[in-house]
Amino acid sequence: MADSNVVLLDFWPSSYGMRVKIALAEKGISYECKQEDLEAKSSLLLEMNPVHKMIPVLIHNAKPICESLNIVQYIDEAWKHKSSLLPSDPYKRSQARFWGDYIDKNVYNAVKRVWSGKGKEQEEWKKELIECLKRLEDELGDKAYFGGEEFGYVDVALVPFTSWFYTVETFGKLSIEDECPTLVAWAKRCMQKETVASSLPHPEQIYAFALQYKHRHGLQ
Amino acid sequence: MADSNVVLLDFWPSSYGMRVKIALAEKGISYECKQEDLEAKSSLLLEMNPVHKMIPVLIHNAKPICESLNIVQYIDEAWKHKSSLLPSDPYKRSQARFWGDYIDKNVYNAVKRVWSGKGKEQEEWKKELIECLKRLEDELGDKAYFGGEEFGYVDVALVPFTSWFYTVETFGKLSIEDECPTLVAWAKRCMQKETVASSLPHPEQIYAFALQYKHRHGLQ
Repeated sequence: MADSNVVLLDFWPSSYGMRVKIALAEKGISYECKQEDLEAKSSLLLEMNPVHKMIPVLIHNAKPICESLNIVQYIDEAWKHKSSLLPSDPYKRSQARFWGDYIDKNVYNAVKRVWSGKGKEQEEWKKELIECLKRLEDELGDKAYFGGEEFGYVDVALVPFTSWFYTVETFGKLSIEDECPTLVAWAKRCMQKETVASSLPHPEQIYAFALQYKHRHGLQ
Repeated sequence: MADSNVVLLDFWPSSYGMRVKIALAEKGISYECKQEDLEAKSSLLLEMNPVHKMIPVLIHNAKPICESLNIVQYIDEAWKHKSSLLPSDPYKRSQARFWGDYIDKNVYNAVKRVWSGKGKEQEEWKKELIECLKRLEDELGDKAYFGGEEFGYVDVALVPFTSWFYTVETFGKLSIEDECPTLVAWAKRCMQKETVASSLPHPEQIYAFALQYKHRHGLQ
């Protein structure tokens, strides 16, 4: 049974929404998930996130929390009993937040511009994306997860974007695995976790969504 | 005596650097402040913040923490003994982080574009800045500080930008006090705190800096 006190306003292809689903799954929280039509946003979404009017929004006991990494931190702090996502050490926490912020500032735009772009601009964005992923790969190093042995905050922040890799590779004509084998191995490791696998759509669903999006926006 | 274990890499007109100074002052932490020349960055800055190569950087026990609101959270967590900047309640924490993020995404750009812009574009940016400040004023409401009775995280995030208001008003030919009287009253209230007043440069120093910047970049 879903806990009626926890509602997620979501749009399934959104990597930001996936982050929240993974965090909720890690904590074992049941919830009601409402899909939004972003071209006809619900009055609930507009009421719950009047500033940005964007998903995801987590509604807990009728109170909204917005912005995906803020929601992930909220989940970590409100349900402390299980699976800490952020480490307890202040320095390690600051490093996790730094990389979460780095992902927010760089990965979404680079991913979107590669799959939706074309020509010379697309080539430039491919370079930017690979540079960004290689930097993250460097940060991962030989650790199992970004925080060390345990799956945590930075993994939650990044792994949803890997469900877009097939789309990026197909439209961008590149192999992320050739460029960043360690990062792709990490993504596969994350996908072995039920909490991740159950929160990410199949890469081909994402591809079908992207194809339709490009048709609709004249980006073919 | 400055604590040699705490070093701040700073550039004095930066609102982001001011945030860190206020947080350190709130906690009563002595530190060494090193001014950076952003046109000839020190090897220490490049080593401590290889990703963004930007100030502020807090170096604590030889380990760097980057990105101003991340540093403020680190300071709050590493020196827990005094003056909590973030509330302890998870929901209130999430709201404070939301508004800190809102300020990061909106205020710097709007402020800079008003004082450095001109013509029709400047007029548009003036509208955007006032809209953004009015939204923050709404959030403040009739509270003494953003978090309630106590000075805290959102105040630390926003108040440094008020040292730029004189510059914005002079170059932009507007009165922020006429538009947002409650917000300006809040700024004056914050400035009565020694921890804030001692961390912000005089508005005329900022104006002189901006004037010189505009000359140097042909923005007259």
